[in-house]
Amino acid sequence: MNDEKTALGQKILKIKKTKNLTWTEIAAKLGHAPVWVCAACMGQMSMTPETAEKTAALFGLDDEEAALLAQAPYRGSLPTAVPTDPLIYRFYELVSVYGTTWKEMIHEEFGDGIMSAIDFDMTMERQPDQKGDRVKLTMSGKFLPYKRY
Amino acid sequence: MNDEKTALGQKILKIKKTKNLTWTEIAAKLGHAPVWVCAACMGQMSMTPETAEKTAALFGLDDEEAALLAQAPYRGSLPTAVPTDPLIYRFYELVSVYGTTWKEMIHEEFGDGIMSAIDFDMTMERQPDQKGDRVKLTMSGKFLPYKRY
Amino acid sequence: MNDEKTALGQKILKIKKTKNLTWTEIAAKLGHAPVWVCAACMGQMSMTPETAEKTAALFGLDDEEAALLAQAPYRGSLPTAVPTDPLIYRFYELVSVYGTTWKEMIHEEFGDGIMSAIDFDMTMERQPDQKGDRVKLTMSGKFLPYKRY
Amino acid sequence: MNDEKTALGQKILKIKKTKNLTWTEIAAKLGHAPVWVCAACMGQMSMTPETAEKTAALFGLDDEEAALLAQAPYRGSLPTAVPTDPLIYRFYELVSVYGTTWKEMIHEEFGDGIMSAIDFDMTMERQPDQKGDRVKLTMSGKFLPYKRY
Amino acid sequence: MNDEKTALGQKILKIKKTKNLTWTEIAAKLGHAPVWVCAACMGQMSMTPETAEKTAALFGLDDEEAALLAQAPYRGSLPTAVPTDPLIYRFYELVSVYGTTWKEMIHEEFGDGIMSAIDFDMTMERQPDQKGDRVKLTMSGKFLPYKRY
Amino acid sequence: MNDEKTALGQKILKIKKTKNLTWTEIAAKLGHAPVWVCAACMGQMSMTPETAEKTAALFGLDDEEAALLAQAPYRGSLPTAVPTDPLIYRFYELVSVYGTTWKEMIHEEFGDGIMSAIDFDMTMERQPDQKGDRVKLTMSGKFLPYKRY
Amino acid sequence: MNDEKTALGQKILKIKKTKNLTWTEIAAKLGHAPVWVCAACMGQMSMTPETAEKTAALFGLDDEEAALLAQAPYRGSLPTAVPTDPLIYRFYELVSVYGTTWKEMIHEEFGDGIMSAIDFDMTMERQPDQKGDRVKLTMSGKFLPYKRY
Amino acid sequence: MNDEKTALGQKILKIKKTKNLTWTEIAAKLGHAPVWVCAACMGQMSMTPETAEKTAALFGLDDEEAALLAQAPYRGSLPTAVPTDPLIYRFYELVSVYGTTWKEMIHEEFGDGIMSAIDFDMTMERQPDQKGDRVKLTMSGKFLPYKRY
Amino acid sequence: MNDEKTALGQKILKIKKTKNLTWTEIAAKLGHAPVWVCAACMGQMSMTPETAEKTAALFGLDDEEAALLAQAPYRGSLPTAVPTDPLIYRFYELVSVYGTTWKEMIHEEFGDGIMSAIDFDMTMERQPDQKGDRVKLTMSGKFLPYKRY
Amino acid sequence: MNDEKTALGQKILKIKKTKNLTWTEIAAKLGHAPVWVCAACMGQMSMTPETAEKTAALFGLDDEEAALLAQAPYRGSLPTAVPTDPLIYRFYELVSVYGTTWKEMIHEEFGDGIMSAIDFDMTMERQPDQKGDRVKLTMSGKFLPYKRY
Repeated sequence: MNDEKTALGQKILKIKKTKNLTWTEIAAKLGHAPVWVCAACMGQMSMTPETAEKTAALFGLDDEEAALLAQAPYRGSLPTAVPTDPLIYRFYELVSVYGTTWKEMIHEEFGDGIMSAIDFDMTMERQPDQKGDRVKLTMSGKFLPYKRY
Repeated sequence: MNDEKTALGQKILKIKKTKNLTWTEIAAKLGHAPVWVCAACMGQMSMTPETAEKTAALFGLDDEEAALLAQAPYRGSLPTAVPTDPLIYRFYELVSVYGTTWKEMIHEEFGDGIMSAIDFDMTMERQPDQKGDRVKLTMSGKFLPYKRY
Repeated sequence: MNDEKTALGQKILKIKKTKNLTWTEIAAKLGHAPVWVCAACMGQMSMTPETAEKTAALFGLDDEEAALLAQAPYRGSLPTAVPTDPLIYRFYELVSVYGTTWKEMIHEEFGDGIMSAIDFDMTMERQPDQKGDRVKLTMSGKFLPYKRY
Repeated sequence: MNDEKTALGQKILKIKKTKNLTWTEIAAKLGHAPVWVCAACMGQMSMTPETAEKTAALFGLDDEEAALLAQAPYRGSLPTAVPTDPLIYRFYELVSVYGTTWKEMIHEEFGDGIMSAIDFDMTMERQPDQKGDRVKLTMSGKFLPYKRY
Repeated sequence: MNDEKTALGQKILKIKKTKNLTWTEIAAKLGHAPVWVCAACMGQMSMTPETAEKTAALFGLDDEEAALLAQAPYRGSLPTAVPTDPLIYRFYELVSVYGTTWKEMIHEEFGDGIMSAIDFDMTMERQPDQKGDRVKLTMSGKFLPYKRY
Repeated sequence: MNDEKTALGQKILKIKKTKNLTWTEIAAKLGHAPVWVCAACMGQMSMTPETAEKTAALFGLDDEEAALLAQAPYRGSLPTAVPTDPLIYRFYELVSVYGTTWKEMIHEEFGDGIMSAIDFDMTMERQPDQKGDRVKLTMSGKFLPYKRY
Repeated sequence: MNDEKTALGQKILKIKKTKNLTWTEIAAKLGHAPVWVCAACMGQMSMTPETAEKTAALFGLDDEEAALLAQAPYRGSLPTAVPTDPLIYRFYELVSVYGTTWKEMIHEEFGDGIMSAIDFDMTMERQPDQKGDRVKLTMSGKFLPYKRY
Repeated sequence: MNDEKTALGQKILKIKKTKNLTWTEIAAKLGHAPVWVCAACMGQMSMTPETAEKTAALFGLDDEEAALLAQAPYRGSLPTAVPTDPLIYRFYELVSVYGTTWKEMIHEEFGDGIMSAIDFDMTMERQPDQKGDRVKLTMSGKFLPYKRY
Repeated sequence: MNDEKTALGQKILKIKKTKNLTWTEIAAKLGHAPVWVCAACMGQMSMTPETAEKTAALFGLDDEEAALLAQAPYRGSLPTAVPTDPLIYRFYELVSVYGTTWKEMIHEEFGDGIMSAIDFDMTMERQPDQKGDRVKLTMSGKFLPYKRY
Repeated sequence: MNDEKTALGQKILKIKKTKNLTWTEIAAKLGHAPVWVCAACMGQMSMTPETAEKTAALFGLDDEEAALLAQAPYRGSLPTAVPTDPLIYRFYELVSVYGTTWKEMIHEEFGDGIMSAIDFDMTMERQPDQKGDRVKLTMSGKFLPYKRY
């Protein structure tokens, strides 16, 4: 269902490479965070019409493609429930290994509820380290308490 | 296979509640980060014998239980491949939605490789916010480039 | 993981039957909605300590059981991903048949985002009807817009 | 098997956008409820030939497409048994969390049987709320008692 | 969840064998059809309290067991989604082979809708045949038209 | 593997509609039962060359299509192991709910063995009923005793 | 469901070892083929009461165990749909590799139908061979033509 | 991955039908056993270049097709892990029912090891029988003892 | 099915720890390779009665336990088809990533066939390395050519 | 997602055959190990731009294809979670049978951690043997200790 958006994402990746742009540069031009901009281009977030137009201008896309960028996607970017790609699998592994830990610690601090994956933002940065640089991910999601009605 | 360690985790949770301890307090006494200490108590990390002894002393555990804390676990804390608990599912959802984005951005910055889930650490904190406090997770994993041999 | 809470739910169901109580009556005594009270007793919601105590008093439960009622559950009440029980399956069928319709209509009205299943409440009532009474379910969940960051 | 109906649904969505119509407006012209009309256009319900003709006229569809709208679909709108899209997943989560609660409460009120998903109707509306508007879903399904023969 | 009812079913099967009873005889005493009586004893249907009492008397069961017979079951009698037992698999095979045929023929005759599995009854009989006796199953389910609302 | 036969089935359904034929009429012309004729046209049974020719003549099919009707299919008409279409799912549900009942009753009557799904026939008819007409399915399969060798 | 029969099978295996018996010897005493006798002892076939008694006498089993041997099992001896044990997996592999070949060849020789797995027998023997002895399996199943009704 | 070989197999089946050949006749011309020849044509075995050429000559295939016949296939001929086609399913059923029996008997006779599915051959023949002809399959696989190193 | 052997393996691990033995030391006493000895103790290989006796003597096991060590196991040591433990998952990942490479290279070198996992042996050693020691695994399996019969 | 790289791999295989090259020869020209070169050509590893250019020159590929060889792949070369191809399945079987053994032995030698599948290399060679040549695989992966933070 999301095939059109995914295909557009592949097209954008190629143009991005040709134009020799980075997500940081693209994000700066669009006035958004790099992770969100990348996710939107990959077809997993929807842009406002204004941002979609700017993006289309940047990559030389037509109106239909701009409209596609603004459309709410059928989310889910992976072909299998357990991802096979090692980079992505490591994140799945973190869920598997730390799942009950996150649950215990969030409940201790906030009570019964969840961390929102919708009212959510994230940054990714390079963390220089003598023993080898590190990937640093910072996630922030609103705590949503379970309503007791 | 990890049933003994999981059961010990449940026991620790009850003692922790009785003793009215927080993970931050426990972690401070053990000289480790709260997330790691919680994960180790939940049965997903192995302690050094020294840390295991300290933990046993803190919770009033016997020698066999201390040894169990030091044993390498058969990791994986969830009963199903796609987690049913909403708090944990939201993390799975992040993998599903952001998987290809993480891949694209890490490759742009670091080249072909992965973020290690082994040489990895994490903090969790409360992020005060007028519109509702937020859960802030900071993950740091060593970038491991694919060896070209 | 939720076995203790589920078992307590079964015990409550038996006492409820012996005491000849309805969920409406129980809910009135606890000051909550019947659906939520039932879900909490079935082990899928957590009560405040006060509500848990009242519930324990009502059903003659001990302190440990009261504490269990107040504990955040590992949610998920079904033994299989696709439920086999026909009553429950019909709801799964609604998701399968109406899923894309809900998506289309909520996006039209609210834009890109979701209906919260956390900041959520529900009522269930009998709707008298000459051709056979009907089950009326009213669900209300806060709309959460996807954050564009 | 339902590919033709789904593709037609995608086509209708595009025309609807061009014509700047809402489901409420479309439903009013067809004399049906918005949810049902949307579901029928998405390819999950079948129209009477008369409604199909009106719909075809409204969207400028040809006879074959009108016939398709009147055809009984192979129902099921989702590509996976557990939906990946967060909006739709939240409904799946409700089934997982509230499944046994619905069962308990319907049996208490009506005895052994089910809520029909066939003799069923539904409305969806915006529920204004200071803390953020809410999605309100009202479902009504005929209670069907298990025949004891 | 249905373990108690299933275990009771196994107990009944043993008593039935000891008492040398047939389902036809049991059914006659209870005033119901043999298939339904067997399904209820196997834990897949719920009896009225009166029938449950009669059944308990017939098999020498106690009050708690009688109550269990009257309880609505969490239905689903098979340990796997695709049954391994050859007798039961053949029925699964019929669904797989004839599924689209049933759909086509019921829609031709009745329009869009389903055959109810709730307002449903069934008989099973031996059909003498020179080339080998046959199993004759007669199923009757109310046609339920999809509501167009 | 069966794609060609399924596609031919879809073509036949369209011609049947144009010609305004019923399965009963088609079956009468071919000298077979309606259920079998429908199943064969849907691509799940193989016709004799003679019947295939007659069918081809009736629907205006060419020689290659006639040959296809006579070819033994790779059987299985459903895209998923658990069917999503509600009409077909109800039959799957019957297998799930009545599976152990059928097993118990056939073994009581016939001993250890199965009901054949190969030496099998079936009729489907409308059963008029004041409370709503019913679908009546009569299945007959040869009992096959397990060989003790 | 078959747990009792499987456990009895394990018990028989131990007695068989103690008594130093072979399946050929056991089969000879019971007047049946070794493969069938082994399958019946493993809990996958049902014996006649006479054979069950003889078997019970041979292994020193009590009456209840003899009755169990005569009971029709819920068949399926493997814990997973795709077997993990290499010896058994090789047979699964043969089905996967030769499945379409068997289908093609049986249809060529016999027409549309199947090889019965019920009216079926099998022998297993050692085939001496200089390059290493071979396992020789001979299977014989009645051809069952698809009924055209 | 094996799509080209499977498609070639379908082409060969059509030519075989046109030329009115049997697998026995084809096998005789190629100097191999019919089962193996059929499996190779279906795309599950690889021919030597010489046999591939002979086969190409027999069926009028070009050089690229001959090369394809000689290529080692990505084996596995079935679209699902549990086959839906009844003829093939019966073999799966034999694995499920007899799996533990084969294991027990091969271990008794040969010790710990397996029957090779690689150093393996098979014949299929019609076994005339008054009560209905039978399919006779004879399989022979080298016993491979587990190496104790 | 293998539960007894797995439990014995856990017992051996505890004794091994108490006795402060390494697999290399144990293997030397038994006259076998460490990997094989470890696998046999973990319940995945069968010992000869002589080795089983020696092992029993070494660990202070009784006769029944010695017999268990000599019994052919129902192989498969993992609770899920895709392993969750990161150490074991990495090997699964190698199969997923290198599967087609191994196939291509073995076929180039040896022709169509497989590497035996039965006539197979393996060593594991520490490979000192300035940048961090490495795990070195050497596997050797007999090439088995596909028989062309 | 990796379809383009996989298709390119198939193209390279054909050219390789035409040019009559071996992986050893190709690897020598590229200055890398044969296993890695093969994996990169099969689309599972990414080349540096320089190596990609050399490879393109060797096989007569265009610039876009060279760029594709340098692109990081969405890894995972197999169509199913449990591979059906026997050559590849044997490696899956080794994971299933030896998984817990590897875990035990690596933990004994190195402590809690894993063998990297990223900082990893491998060779494959023919091991001449009188009883039949063997496939020898040597794997070397950096040991990564679990960080205790």
